[in-house]
Amino acid sequence: MEGSLITDLCTPAMVVDVDVVKRNAKRMMERCQGVGVQLRPHMKTHKTLECADIMTGGSRRCIVVSTLAEACFFADHGFDDILYAYSIPFDKVERCAALSERLSLFQVLLDHPDALELLRKRPLREGRLWHVWLKLDCGNGRAGILHSEPDALLLAQAVSETEGVELTGVYAHCGNTYNCKGVVQIQAVAQETTTFVLQFMEQLKAVGITCKSSIGSTPSCSHPVKDMAQLSEVHPGNYVFYDVQQSLIGSCGLEDVAVRVLTRVIGHCPHRNQLLIDCGWAGLSHDGAGKLPTGNAMIEGHPNLRLLSMTQEHGRVEPMSGKLDYSAYPLGTLLTLIPYHSCATALMHPVYHVHSAGRLVGKWTPTRGW
Amino acid sequence: MEGSLITDLCTPAMVVDVDVVKRNAKRMMERCQGVGVQLRPHMKTHKTLECADIMTGGSRRCIVVSTLAEACFFADHGFDDILYAYSIPFDKVERCAALSERLSLFQVLLDHPDALELLRKRPLREGRLWHVWLKLDCGNGRAGILHSEPDALLLAQAVSETEGVELTGVYAHCGNTYNCKGVVQIQAVAQETTTFVLQFMEQLKAVGITCKSSIGSTPSCSHPVKDMAQLSEVHPGNYVFYDVQQSLIGSCGLEDVAVRVLTRVIGHCPHRNQLLIDCGWAGLSHDGAGKLPTGNAMIEGHPNLRLLSMTQEHGRVEPMSGKLDYSAYPLGTLLTLIPYHSCATALMHPVYHVHSAGRLVGKWTPTRGW
Repeated sequence: MEGSLITDLCTPAMVVDVDVVKRNAKRMMERCQGVGVQLRPHMKTHKTLECADIMTGGSRRCIVVSTLAEACFFADHGFDDILYAYSIPFDKVERCAALSERLSLFQVLLDHPDALELLRKRPLREGRLWHVWLKLDCGNGRAGILHSEPDALLLAQAVSETEGVELTGVYAHCGNTYNCKGVVQIQAVAQETTTFVLQFMEQLKAVGITCKSSIGSTPSCSHPVKDMAQLSEVHPGNYVFYDVQQSLIGSCGLEDVAVRVLTRVIGHCPHRNQLLIDCGWAGLSHDGAGKLPTGNAMIEGHPNLRLLSMTQEHGRVEPMSGKLDYSAYPLGTLLTLIPYHSCATALMHPVYHVHSAGRLVGKWTPTRGW
Repeated sequence: MEGSLITDLCTPAMVVDVDVVKRNAKRMMERCQGVGVQLRPHMKTHKTLECADIMTGGSRRCIVVSTLAEACFFADHGFDDILYAYSIPFDKVERCAALSERLSLFQVLLDHPDALELLRKRPLREGRLWHVWLKLDCGNGRAGILHSEPDALLLAQAVSETEGVELTGVYAHCGNTYNCKGVVQIQAVAQETTTFVLQFMEQLKAVGITCKSSIGSTPSCSHPVKDMAQLSEVHPGNYVFYDVQQSLIGSCGLEDVAVRVLTRVIGHCPHRNQLLIDCGWAGLSHDGAGKLPTGNAMIEGHPNLRLLSMTQEHGRVEPMSGKLDYSAYPLGTLLTLIPYHSCATALMHPVYHVHSAGRLVGKWTPTRGW
């Protein structure tokens, strides 16, 4: 299939513009170099070796993952310096230990004393250390110990004092940038998160502890603030694909979105003034419901169409206004969806069709599961 | 892993109670025998060989699928008499022709004269016929030519008169039963759909055409009406797993739901009165948002907990009222989610862990893609 046109693909199909991927990756690398902070790209959006190669500039080092399945997948293919940035689950300590004993550098994360106790009880072989990041909640409101809690400092101290364990760093995810609109708001959250982390680093220093620090999210790293130079690392991920959501937040322009779902018209419903397409939530995900005037996606080049609703394998499309001209959309017509959330859409596809200027150059197969 | 407890599984994990699956399958077979109508079970919910075996009573015959990937997967494993119940997509005619030429009985579906024209232009080898079902919209409002349109009869006649093509049957999906609450409403829709189809069959008879007829949906086939005896087939699918949605519609009781997602507590957030669990939308899907007081799922045995929100790999859980007692939910605590929509949840899992009375008896691997 290499060399053939993406328009010849059976649909629904997720296509990835490798040139845009490379441009997004390069810009993020240059941006981080410009700020003076180490980029540790997140793999959770794409979960593929090929895209990981592009994001790491071929080094296969210094990545972050959201599942242990990703960690194992990348480790099995020669990646190293992997941070499993997920409050270490109690059922996966042994698998984490195995990776810690096998890789040069496997890093875990925690936000609770009970998790530390678990690591203490499972010392690594050959004098190896558990490399532990402390997860701080700096206003994101998901995982992490609240940065302002006195317990946060106590936990950091406990980590650094526990035998067989090293406090590698302090980690905060500023997912609250997803509520922003525009660069000013994004940078306000990026600044706040950075400030909270740096203040925490000062507290650590005051008790004699030094370690790394990292914040991340695609919006904040697409528009970094100067103070991020004082951090050790940043860990964005979605930026390699971007999506409509990121364009609305202000992280990117629509021209930076590297992924599309190709779909075809499979039905005419004149009695409802609708078209049917062969992409339902099985091909797009439910994500984005109610977020866009055009439905869960934008229909590229057809601003007057919107994706009204989806079932598993069908999408209902209607005009924003007026009567549908069916002669303009004969059965088989190819339509192109720009997904609201590329992480969610990518997760629905067992393979991504990769192209350059519309010609297929390969397939990327993501890992799945946990 | 066989013989071990499902509670030892790493989470999130989708578990399937094989005894409930078998009971659901048996009841549907008996129900259809009782009515006197052929059951053609739909594979789209589970997409696995093992569950297909159970649903067909081991015959591996007479199934319906939603994607061509399913059709090929089942055909590759010895299944036959397969109905691809999806308006035949213009990009997949050649693949459909190949299946038609290879299997004893591969059946397609259409609702537009242009699709018929496509089949006419691709005659099958060795004098084989395209076996075509006409898709009728009997009020469901998705695919199908409207049953009341004069064009519907004309299209049926055109199919039956086209060389190389056979009008195998008339097919209607009563997905509008999903808007019902309770048996009375379900049966009203089942009756209406059946009546419309039977009236259409009368019209066909009047012009000298006889063929099969089929309606389906899990609600209607869980509570069939007498007139369904006059149909040739029914084609429900979800019933083998059922889910919270089906229990709310009135198709089943919660005790009939065969699937769960196991998850563990991975975080305590006392400052927000929340728990974090290791199941986000990657493990549950977004389906069901806003449909339940308990969020996108029910948390079995914990009626006071609700799944407030999810991100890719995290779920936020809070009490319906009052303060959370964290001592009751130490990190690592196993919680069990009953999914809102099992079709959507199953699609998120690369493997289903199958158990009997909580002991693992195997793994089922679904097919994916299109």
